[in-house]
Amino acid sequence: MDRQFDRLLAIPSDPREGLYRAMRHATIGGGKRLRPLLVFATAQLFAVDKACTARVATALECIHVYSLIHDDLPAMDDDDLRRGKPTVHCAFDEATAILAGDCLHALAFEILADEATYLDPFARVELIASLSHASGPSGMAGGQMMDLEAEKASFDLPTVTRLQAMKTGALIACAVECGAILGRVPPEGRTGLRGYARDMGLAFQIADDILDAEGDEALAGKKLRKDGAAGKETFLSLLGLERAKEQAALLVDQAIEHLKSYGPEADLLRDIARYTLERDR
Amino acid sequence: MDRQFDRLLAIPSDPREGLYRAMRHATIGGGKRLRPLLVFATAQLFAVDKACTARVATALECIHVYSLIHDDLPAMDDDDLRRGKPTVHCAFDEATAILAGDCLHALAFEILADEATYLDPFARVELIASLSHASGPSGMAGGQMMDLEAEKASFDLPTVTRLQAMKTGALIACAVECGAILGRVPPEGRTGLRGYARDMGLAFQIADDILDAEGDEALAGKKLRKDGAAGKETFLSLLGLERAKEQAALLVDQAIEHLKSYGPEADLLRDIARYTLERDR
Repeated sequence: MDRQFDRLLAIPSDPREGLYRAMRHATIGGGKRLRPLLVFATAQLFAVDKACTARVATALECIHVYSLIHDDLPAMDDDDLRRGKPTVHCAFDEATAILAGDCLHALAFEILADEATYLDPFARVELIASLSHASGPSGMAGGQMMDLEAEKASFDLPTVTRLQAMKTGALIACAVECGAILGRVPPEGRTGLRGYARDMGLAFQIADDILDAEGDEALAGKKLRKDGAAGKETFLSLLGLERAKEQAALLVDQAIEHLKSYGPEADLLRDIARYTLERDR
Repeated sequence: MDRQFDRLLAIPSDPREGLYRAMRHATIGGGKRLRPLLVFATAQLFAVDKACTARVATALECIHVYSLIHDDLPAMDDDDLRRGKPTVHCAFDEATAILAGDCLHALAFEILADEATYLDPFARVELIASLSHASGPSGMAGGQMMDLEAEKASFDLPTVTRLQAMKTGALIACAVECGAILGRVPPEGRTGLRGYARDMGLAFQIADDILDAEGDEALAGKKLRKDGAAGKETFLSLLGLERAKEQAALLVDQAIEHLKSYGPEADLLRDIARYTLERDR
């Protein structure tokens, strides 16, 4: 991923230099790279070309990073630490952060539309349809809006589940879906992978809530204990620690069960599901 | 356009209501609709289906409006009036404005990727490649970054020309290009249209600088006299009023000259070029 972004974001010698430095700051070095990893782990089930997979993985990470940059802004979550580094608006300024996010957003679609990503335009358009839907008002950005409202309202468990399915689940599901699209799996053949992504994404988010309450800020590389301070309902506040941990473990088992038609070639996907519970960042 | 956005942005009865109200506030009612008009005026040269054209025009306007919402933010141009109404961060709040912009950005690509836009996926992918390139760091957003730097530096005429070609010219050129893509004009057949769009876009921006200095805020529906106050070099400051007007008129003539291979079916494009000089908003 670092090599991909280094190539993609060569610094121009004109007044946009700061903009490119900001994009590099946000994309290079750090992060779990969960979404790119999911693209790779799914695409390798179908022996997809590595260079094509890397481009799609980069596009997914562009969207994820743009959302982090914008979510960290003072008007949103107002965070100053991300991936163990100052957030973009702290290292640069707010205007540069807004534009760096917007640019990564556009670059994601520019990468996917390029024929180097996949020769058949139908597959490219399917990748773009999946990513734009997952990242817009019906997915990630819509979920972030619900998350902001969560500070004012008191959401019940179904609403928190829907919020998380949109805010983080949609892009995680899209990463798996894109791997399947690259593998030319028709929509009716994606049921198991979709089930895997849904359950794994939800387990990931429950683990995130637990990490927010119990984790180590130095390891996580970002500010923690935010949900409680903001008075937001989370899986943890609604279920309690014990039941939240049980629920996450159950979801990981279910996620792995969805992969039963695949052999050892899906072991990486199974390991990723288990990792969601064990991670410290 | 208003009908298109009304359908696209039906308000959901969930915590995203404010997000959709913000997108409707920004997209419905008002604006010159120059970019949609250019898509229509170009597509009608080739008798393209009206419903397809309307979808592409909507996607272009989504990108334009998202850029206005983000440019108006306090960290950027800090404007409180746009299209005669309060800007989105004033009518709602900054977080909603950032997310409304992000959502319109994603929706533009979701619209273009849908097969209702054009049955052939190759044309859809070409539309997406054109729009993502025009709106990202090599186009609109990159130009906006240069514009922010213009307040600190003292740009010369070639740099100001490049800045404007990116900031507003790229999306205007993209609107014409999209009309040609819908008309299945191969790239080598688009030379005249590209020349038209380039010269018209530049004339439009020179006229915008003149409007900023000489216009009526009530008619323009936005704050004026900003360039001088910010100490930015513009076409006006570099050329002086007389030469700026001459230059704009010359560019309009050139733009119309680029259309010489077209008959009366291109009269709307010719009228649009002339309108760039006469407009009061």
